[in-house]
Amino acid sequence: MISSEYTRDLCVRDAQSKILMLVIDGLGGLPDPETGKSELETANLPNLDELANRSSCGLLSPLGPGFTPGSGPAHLALFGYDPWKTKIGRGALSALGLGLDFGEGDVAVRLNFCTVDEIGNVTDRRAGRLSNEVAQELCRQMNKIVIPGVEISVKAEMEYRAAVVFRGEGLSDGVGDSDPQVTGVPPNKLVASDSESFRMIDIANQFLQQARDILVDEAPANMILMRGFGKYPELDSFQEVYGLKSLGIAGYPMYRGVAGAVGMDTVLVDWDLESELKLYEGLNSEYDYVYFHVKKTDSAGEDGDFNRKVELLEEVDSLIPRLQKHSPDVFVVTGDHSTPAIMRSHSWHPVPTIISSSCSSHDSIKGFSERSCRNGSLGTIPSASLMAVTLAHAKRLNKFGA
Amino acid sequence: MISSEYTRDLCVRDAQSKILMLVIDGLGGLPDPETGKSELETANLPNLDELANRSSCGLLSPLGPGFTPGSGPAHLALFGYDPWKTKIGRGALSALGLGLDFGEGDVAVRLNFCTVDEIGNVTDRRAGRLSNEVAQELCRQMNKIVIPGVEISVKAEMEYRAAVVFRGEGLSDGVGDSDPQVTGVPPNKLVASDSESFRMIDIANQFLQQARDILVDEAPANMILMRGFGKYPELDSFQEVYGLKSLGIAGYPMYRGVAGAVGMDTVLVDWDLESELKLYEGLNSEYDYVYFHVKKTDSAGEDGDFNRKVELLEEVDSLIPRLQKHSPDVFVVTGDHSTPAIMRSHSWHPVPTIISSSCSSHDSIKGFSERSCRNGSLGTIPSASLMAVTLAHAKRLNKFGA
Repeated sequence: MISSEYTRDLCVRDAQSKILMLVIDGLGGLPDPETGKSELETANLPNLDELANRSSCGLLSPLGPGFTPGSGPAHLALFGYDPWKTKIGRGALSALGLGLDFGEGDVAVRLNFCTVDEIGNVTDRRAGRLSNEVAQELCRQMNKIVIPGVEISVKAEMEYRAAVVFRGEGLSDGVGDSDPQVTGVPPNKLVASDSESFRMIDIANQFLQQARDILVDEAPANMILMRGFGKYPELDSFQEVYGLKSLGIAGYPMYRGVAGAVGMDTVLVDWDLESELKLYEGLNSEYDYVYFHVKKTDSAGEDGDFNRKVELLEEVDSLIPRLQKHSPDVFVVTGDHSTPAIMRSHSWHPVPTIISSSCSSHDSIKGFSERSCRNGSLGTIPSASLMAVTLAHAKRLNKFGA
Repeated sequence: MISSEYTRDLCVRDAQSKILMLVIDGLGGLPDPETGKSELETANLPNLDELANRSSCGLLSPLGPGFTPGSGPAHLALFGYDPWKTKIGRGALSALGLGLDFGEGDVAVRLNFCTVDEIGNVTDRRAGRLSNEVAQELCRQMNKIVIPGVEISVKAEMEYRAAVVFRGEGLSDGVGDSDPQVTGVPPNKLVASDSESFRMIDIANQFLQQARDILVDEAPANMILMRGFGKYPELDSFQEVYGLKSLGIAGYPMYRGVAGAVGMDTVLVDWDLESELKLYEGLNSEYDYVYFHVKKTDSAGEDGDFNRKVELLEEVDSLIPRLQKHSPDVFVVTGDHSTPAIMRSHSWHPVPTIISSSCSSHDSIKGFSERSCRNGSLGTIPSASLMAVTLAHAKRLNKFGA
C-alpha cells in the first residue's frame, strides 16, 4: 500500500488548489431484499447522480477484502494513514473530540452507560439511550472518583457515551474492553495484552468499582462499560505530510478527535447539517483542505432504519449545490465505511466514491451507487490511497522519477 | 506486488514462445471536454479494436493510485521491476541510451539546454527546442570543460537534451535537480540528499560555471539545467530474471537506455515508426522477447495536441498488421503511462492494455480505450505485474506448488 510516508517524501508539492472531502458516514449499503435496491439506489439523488456522471468514480476498501473497520481506522485510512499500523484507541478519539485535557503519557477510555440486572448481566448496552442532560449529571458525579496517584477527568459525549482520561505515572493502553458487545452476560473482565498493563488494569478496576457505587441507583444507567483504551496519539500532521492547511468540520465529537489527531483545525459545532454547512461557508476560504463529516447516515444504518437512511442521503444530496457554490478545485464524496441497514452494523463492503475535478475522467456512470461505482475509472482501491488520488487531481503531486 | 524476484525464483521456465511488447508512450488519455471522448475513443483504430475484442484486456497502474511516473520508473514497472525501489536516474538512462562510456562508479546527469535572461531567470526550459545540429556543436564545446581529477563526456541527445558522464573517485548521485520545472525563476541550487554528495555538488557546480561561460553568447541555448543524477545501474538482466533473449527497439535514446539497463540488446535506430519496424522485421526471429517503443504519442500529449495524438494513434494502428505478420505467440499492446492531451503532462491514470495469445480470454470489449479496458478480464493491475501475466500467456511460468 502506498500511503502517506511516500507522498510526503517523494512527491508532494505546493499548489493553490482547494480540496473538499465530504465523508458521509456509513455511506455504502446493501439491497433491500424486497426491492433489490440499496439505500443509495432507492434514494432520489439528482445532484450526486449528476456529479458522479462527470467525475472519476470508484470504490474504496477501508481495510482490504473482508475486514470491517471501526470509525477510527476507517478515518485514518481516508486521511492516508495506514489503518492497520496507525492505532488510536476509540477512547483517545473521544477524548480529543471532547476537548478533554489529554496529553502525552495519559490514557483515555471510551465509556458507555449501560443497564445491568441484579446479578450483574448487561441488559441494555446503551442504557435506554439516556438524555445528554442525564449523562452530563452522571459524569459530574463520576469526576469525584478518587484513585491515589491518578488524575481523572470524565466528560459526557452524546446520549449514553462518555470518555475518561487517566493521568499519572506508568499508565498504558494494552487493556481489552469490558464491553461484552452482547446483552445477557456480565461485562468482560479487563484483560492485559502486555505485561506493562497490569497497573492500568488495577486503576481501571478501581474506577469501575467506584463508578458502580455511584451509579447503583441510577437505572437505566446503573453501570458503565469501558472500550478502546488509548494513549495520546502522535501522528505526523496534514501540514507536515501533505502541506495542507486543513479544517475538520464534524458535529460529532469523536470525528473532531480524529481530525485533530492528524493536525486539522477543528471548531465546536452542532452535528446537524445546517450548522456544519454554515461553518464551511464561513471558513473554507482560509483552508487548502476541508474534511466535512456527516454522521446521521451511519446511525440510521446501525439502527436498521433503511428508509431513514434513504431520507438522510436525500438531505445530503440537497446540500450539494451549496457546497459546490464555493467551487473547490477537487470535490470528493465518499464514506468511511459501509453501514448497510439490513446488517444494522458497519461492514467490509467497499464504499462508493466520487472525485470531481478538471482532470477527472468523466466515467459516465448512471446514478451514484455501490453498483455503478464498480465500473468507475478509479477501480476498487484501498481507502488509504484516496489522499494520493485526491492530491493528484489537485495537481499537488510531482511525478516520481524523470 | 509480484515482481521479478518472485517469478525468477519460483516459476520461470523455458519455452519456445515469442513475445512482442508494443509500448505506446503516454498511451492513456482523458476525454476532450467538448466531445466527451478520449484520444483513443476519437481515433479510428480498426486493427487495435479487432485485437482488443479477441484478447485479454485491462488497465495497468504504473505506481499505484494517484502517483504519476516519470519514464524511468514507468518502464521499469513494465519490465517487472519494482518501480519504487529500483531507481535509475534519468541521466543514467540517457547515458546508456546514447552509448556514452559509462560504468561502475561513474555518475551521469541529464542536461537540458535552456534560455536565461540577464538576471539569470529561466525563460525557456527547452531553449526554443534547438536543432540537433546546434546541440551537437554546443556539446562538442562543453567537452572542453576541465575539472581536476574528473573525466567528463558530454553528448547531445535530441533537440535541447543532452547528457554528461562524470568519472573519478568518490562520485555520488544524491544530488537534486537544478531544473526548476517552471520559468520565471533562476535554476535551483544543487542540494545534497546525503552527506556523501558534497564532493559531487562541488564538481557539478564547477561544471555549471564553465558551461555558463561557454554558452553565454549562444542564446537561446545560453545555459544548461541538470536533472536526474544517477550512478551506473546494476540490475539483474532479462536473461537472468526471465530467461528471455531480448531486444529493445527504440529510436529515442533514453528508452534504449532503460532497455539496456535490464540487459536487452539495443541497436541505434531512427525514431520514426518505419525505421523501428524495419529493425523488427529484420531481427525479431533471433529473439524471445522484443520491446518496441513508440515515442511520439507522448510528445503530442505533452504538447497538448489532442488531434496530433489521435493521428499518431491511427498511424500506430495501421502498422499492427505488419507486426502481426511475424506471428508472435504473445502480442502485448500497452503504454508506460498516460499523457492526456488536456493535461499536457504525464498522469497517474491507468493505461489500457491488450494481451493477445492463444490462451487469451476474448474479452469481447468494444473498441480499444480507457473505458472499455476497465471491463476487461485482467482488471486494473500494477504495471509491474504485466511481465508475469505476459509470461503466463507465453506458457513460460510453471505452476506454484504441486
